[in-house]
Amino acid sequence: MQPKSLSRLTQLLLKVPGVGSKSAQRMAMHVLQGSLSDAEELASAILELKRNIRTCSVCFHLGEEDPCEICRDESREGSILLVVEQPADVLSIERAGSYRGRYHVLQGVLSPIDGVTPDQIRIRELLQRVSQNGVREVIIATNPTVPGETTAIHLAQLLREKQVRVSRIGRGIPMGGVIDYADEQTITRALEGRTDLNL
Amino acid sequence: MQPKSLSRLTQLLLKVPGVGSKSAQRMAMHVLQGSLSDAEELASAILELKRNIRTCSVCFHLGEEDPCEICRDESREGSILLVVEQPADVLSIERAGSYRGRYHVLQGVLSPIDGVTPDQIRIRELLQRVSQNGVREVIIATNPTVPGETTAIHLAQLLREKQVRVSRIGRGIPMGGVIDYADEQTITRALEGRTDLNL
Repeated sequence: MQPKSLSRLTQLLLKVPGVGSKSAQRMAMHVLQGSLSDAEELASAILELKRNIRTCSVCFHLGEEDPCEICRDESREGSILLVVEQPADVLSIERAGSYRGRYHVLQGVLSPIDGVTPDQIRIRELLQRVSQNGVREVIIATNPTVPGETTAIHLAQLLREKQVRVSRIGRGIPMGGVIDYADEQTITRALEGRTDLNL
Repeated sequence: MQPKSLSRLTQLLLKVPGVGSKSAQRMAMHVLQGSLSDAEELASAILELKRNIRTCSVCFHLGEEDPCEICRDESREGSILLVVEQPADVLSIERAGSYRGRYHVLQGVLSPIDGVTPDQIRIRELLQRVSQNGVREVIIATNPTVPGETTAIHLAQLLREKQVRVSRIGRGIPMGGVIDYADEQTITRALEGRTDLNL
């Protein structure tokens, strides 16, 4: 027998992908053991997130304003566009901190099996941006999966007629990874994508 | 660069034990991708949990009312008390579903290193309950750790003068576990705690 409000929160937390019943309970107990003001802060952060975040009409990333913080940042290189599938990809790349250009979020990936066609993702908007805004390079950073590779090839074909350099992110053995554990496709890509070592 | 309300929620989620930066971000994205009403439901569940749950003045478990649901449940055996360290232990044992007696939550465990002495946990209240309420057996279910064992021995000594059976939960190889991976102390306990197989 569990207190009702405890099982209610636990049930809601269980809907989060990757959260199992043990961690849902641990999280609920964390709320219970904290102060009321901590709980209020968490509840308001959830609501604020949902209320304040909107999709940027330029790059389709998420932001508190439209255009988003990245699109409004004058210090970022406007001539390079990095194309990703989802907003979460932008967050991961921003965490790495090494990219200083701008983004374009496709909001999906081409997948004939799931019925996702080119007009359902933000390809038209990408082509418009490339035509209008002095873009010199488009880096295609869709995932190295079948749909991601399909999308990359499709974009490369569409961009061929524009006056831009089109590149694809490197694929290979992850840093800290071991070749012994890599699958054959990764090894093949890593060999194809070898770079000169000019010491 | 991350939208402010996204990093605010992510930072709060990072305080939960066992939640790392990747899962905090995944959880925040789950909120973002869900509907506003889902977010409102989650926020209100957090607040309700914190507002509705109180500590039971009889057994010191958590409940929506005082006495708690378990203490008020007439169908539960009142002559057996199971003594645990924390409310989370009650939840785990209730999930197992095989125990039909009542509980006593110590709200801690004796630990000279951390300066936790007998008067700082609910030992006095346990002794009172045992004296007053027709208790026949006390099952000590503190964790099989150094503080938990110390507490169990201390309680057993205090309860020796009362007219009750005092028992300790079985310690040994966990179900589904393998002897090969068990540590020496667990194996020693499992041998000591062997039971007759009367087929």
